[in-house]
Amino acid sequence: MDLWLREGQVSDAVMTYKVKQTLIREKTKYQDLAIVDTYSFGKMLVLDGIVQTTVRDEYVYHEMITHIPLFTHPNPKRVLVVGGGDGGSVKEILKHPAVEKVVLCEIDSEVVNQCKKYLPEISFALEDPRCQILIGDGIKYVREHKDSFDVVIVDSTDPFGAAEGLFGRNFYSEIYDCLTENGIFAAQTETPFYLPGEVKKIYENVKSVFPIAKLFMAGIPTYPSGFWSFTLGSKKYDPQSVDLSSREDINTKYYTKKLHKVCFVLPKFIEDLTR
Amino acid sequence: MDLWLREGQVSDAVMTYKVKQTLIREKTKYQDLAIVDTYSFGKMLVLDGIVQTTVRDEYVYHEMITHIPLFTHPNPKRVLVVGGGDGGSVKEILKHPAVEKVVLCEIDSEVVNQCKKYLPEISFALEDPRCQILIGDGIKYVREHKDSFDVVIVDSTDPFGAAEGLFGRNFYSEIYDCLTENGIFAAQTETPFYLPGEVKKIYENVKSVFPIAKLFMAGIPTYPSGFWSFTLGSKKYDPQSVDLSSREDINTKYYTKKLHKVCFVLPKFIEDLTR
Repeated sequence: MDLWLREGQVSDAVMTYKVKQTLIREKTKYQDLAIVDTYSFGKMLVLDGIVQTTVRDEYVYHEMITHIPLFTHPNPKRVLVVGGGDGGSVKEILKHPAVEKVVLCEIDSEVVNQCKKYLPEISFALEDPRCQILIGDGIKYVREHKDSFDVVIVDSTDPFGAAEGLFGRNFYSEIYDCLTENGIFAAQTETPFYLPGEVKKIYENVKSVFPIAKLFMAGIPTYPSGFWSFTLGSKKYDPQSVDLSSREDINTKYYTKKLHKVCFVLPKFIEDLTR
Repeated sequence: MDLWLREGQVSDAVMTYKVKQTLIREKTKYQDLAIVDTYSFGKMLVLDGIVQTTVRDEYVYHEMITHIPLFTHPNPKRVLVVGGGDGGSVKEILKHPAVEKVVLCEIDSEVVNQCKKYLPEISFALEDPRCQILIGDGIKYVREHKDSFDVVIVDSTDPFGAAEGLFGRNFYSEIYDCLTENGIFAAQTETPFYLPGEVKKIYENVKSVFPIAKLFMAGIPTYPSGFWSFTLGSKKYDPQSVDLSSREDINTKYYTKKLHKVCFVLPKFIEDLTR
């Protein structure tokens, strides 16, 4: 049998992956969850037909969504991850020696359970004593924890259906309050190539709440178009002017301190979305 | 009938495009040529099953392969394009007011003929009086024209089969001789994600010939992995330190002068290929 996964985010330009085997597939309370082993990208987590992360290219997404805000903050002690049940963001966050505690607030317990079981290469840091896992609604958690985190990362699915509320102005305003005095927020914010209107709207929402709002890009092979945006909101520190020279180097495959300074310089059609 | 094009460069991670209609398909002397109209990217040129360019995203590739070398050279009067029969590179080159002549040396006359007929949005500049079209072997042309061009662009298919010779040290050495005193060369050089060994080899070939050799990246949705490399070789001018402030702005959708300065700052796994 020749088994292929058809990625579901874009209807007329579809990425397909040859599958060795399906390790788990189930309907959870929130979504269709699958972990499949592919020839090209190794094991991948697929939610509602959309590839979330793969063993082979997860480092790009997880390094960029975490190290940009964590290197921008001079002393990130407490970090909140909303979503991110695969544990990839926690893995990167815990590379920072300043971090004392990471709270992971994931709505779907099965994402955590199955990633612990089938994707230990990505999820291993969820076992770290500095990591606290909460199963619940991130919006509610953020609302109930004011002035509590130095960095908040929204590592969510796409802004349609269940996760839509994670991209709205109200939520960003609550994240602002959840952050400490000079806190920083970052989120994955879709592909400017296929969804320029969404990227623009999200950027404007962040900008309406945070004094510093910046969009940055990374090349992620398994996300539609291969070129993905993240948006950062900051109360005080500017990611482009922060001095990184004294910061301890960490082991990465994509992020570098030099790249940190320039990933905010955008191709024209993307820069235009932030005007 | 539901017609889909399966992109042929990567075997186990395959991009597919829903097709409205096939405008032309023929076996030329050199390759299987098709121009198809797709729902997601409009019309696209496909050679031997591999997407070369599309109406919707051609600007990324053609702007970056041309404007980086042409803005690096202070006065690019004469430009040679090896390959590039679709005319997209010529279209961008002719935006530079200094350019007096572009020679396009394409081996397959049918690429030029069919792109003129079916892809006028990309190929229109081939009719410009400053453009001279030669049908023939680019390697032979380069060898026979010493000290003749300020910029040489190798806008070719992939380094397998017919185009393999366009990525070798010998050819780069002949390009060096074909360039004027302070000339600059640029080429498309594949995806570091799927073909790191090829990218490294090509970079080392360029570096063994040119005193300045640099790799730069761009996000191209229809190329495998979506994140593509180009390599520049320069006799004198460094693309990162050249002063662009006095240069006339040109109309682009991807290239900006700011991006020019930073597209050479590479993600770690790509930077490692250039060490």
